[in-house]
Amino acid sequence: MREVFKAELEAIADELVEMASKVSVAMRSATEALENNDLELAEKVIDNDTEIDTMTHELDQRSAELLALQAPVAADLRVVISALKMSVAIERMGDLSRHIASLVRIRHPQAALPEGFRDVFMHMGEAAIRIGEEMEQLLDSPGLRGVPVINAIDKELDQMHLQVFALIADTGRGELSPSQIADITLLSRYFERFGDQAVNVSQQVEYLLTGSWVPELSAKE
Amino acid sequence: MREVFKAELEAIADELVEMASKVSVAMRSATEALENNDLELAEKVIDNDTEIDTMTHELDQRSAELLALQAPVAADLRVVISALKMSVAIERMGDLSRHIASLVRIRHPQAALPEGFRDVFMHMGEAAIRIGEEMEQLLDSPGLRGVPVINAIDKELDQMHLQVFALIADTGRGELSPSQIADITLLSRYFERFGDQAVNVSQQVEYLLTGSWVPELSAKE
Repeated sequence: MREVFKAELEAIADELVEMASKVSVAMRSATEALENNDLELAEKVIDNDTEIDTMTHELDQRSAELLALQAPVAADLRVVISALKMSVAIERMGDLSRHIASLVRIRHPQAALPEGFRDVFMHMGEAAIRIGEEMEQLLDSPGLRGVPVINAIDKELDQMHLQVFALIADTGRGELSPSQIADITLLSRYFERFGDQAVNVSQQVEYLLTGSWVPELSAKE
Repeated sequence: MREVFKAELEAIADELVEMASKVSVAMRSATEALENNDLELAEKVIDNDTEIDTMTHELDQRSAELLALQAPVAADLRVVISALKMSVAIERMGDLSRHIASLVRIRHPQAALPEGFRDVFMHMGEAAIRIGEEMEQLLDSPGLRGVPVINAIDKELDQMHLQVFALIADTGRGELSPSQIADITLLSRYFERFGDQAVNVSQQVEYLLTGSWVPELSAKE
């Protein structure tokens, strides 16, 4: 019985890592689609998101069954509780990648990104890909070392989000169309929220390892 | 022992209802602050959000303890699992109300809302208040009747969100400043997401009552 339980816990952990990996790939492709105005790639991101959604449901179900059948305690219970919380955040990261891809598709054949905003968004994309990969690694081999790394990348994303707003404010009236400004605003928000959700995951890892509900390493100011 | 357990489950339910109630109040105040450019009210929303965050932590902790000490099964287990999921959504609704209030504060003494967008946003605010109240009621006396009501209001919010983008696209170049357009975009997104999170809560109520992870009444297309 004990063995089955351990196998179940491992299956939950594996599934979280796989979801995180899919989300990293989705963000990489979404950024690439945005950079190259690549409709085909954008559509792939949109299609693939249903896989992440399905995995979330499976994971939640598996966690619920484990709670019902095994009544885990202590550290094992924390794994299941945080899996339930993490699946929300990781699913959302998939949605955010899909939203970026959807904007590419909606504007195609025009580019969703005006020339003057390419650089900042490619930096945002790079940081988002990095935070996704760090999260995947953190879930694959949980340790507190990865938590502040994720926090630092999230701060970079927050900074770049502010930079986008500064760039918008500096844009001359009429230089961009109102819809272009709305697109840029949403895109920036999607990247920034992707970082926030990675922090939510790392807060759960901190809870998992320390048993404390109040994140210290992964606190957001 | 059984009695303590029931009391604990009830405490969790009560706390969820109280959180939902605070979130409804926050959305009402945020909308009012936006309508009347009321700095004082906006600051109240921002300050009060920490209460909702604290309640979320307490609720999660309480749920974890209940799982550890009582190992609930069947319907009781579902209450605890969905409480863990619902707290994420309700906390986020508090954040979204705070974001609206923050925009009012940042732009004050100027109005965050240009004249031509007042009507649509007041309708959005009204719908968001309504969905918050429906959610509170649903949690107070759970029943499947409330689920499609919440879905219908969410659809209204989605429609108004699209309407805002249509209004933005119709705005003449240079008519509004780029920052004004960015503000409107974000505000609309906040109201729309508030509705999505209420749907997430109603999906959990559906799971609670039916035991099915796949929402039928509360599915989003």
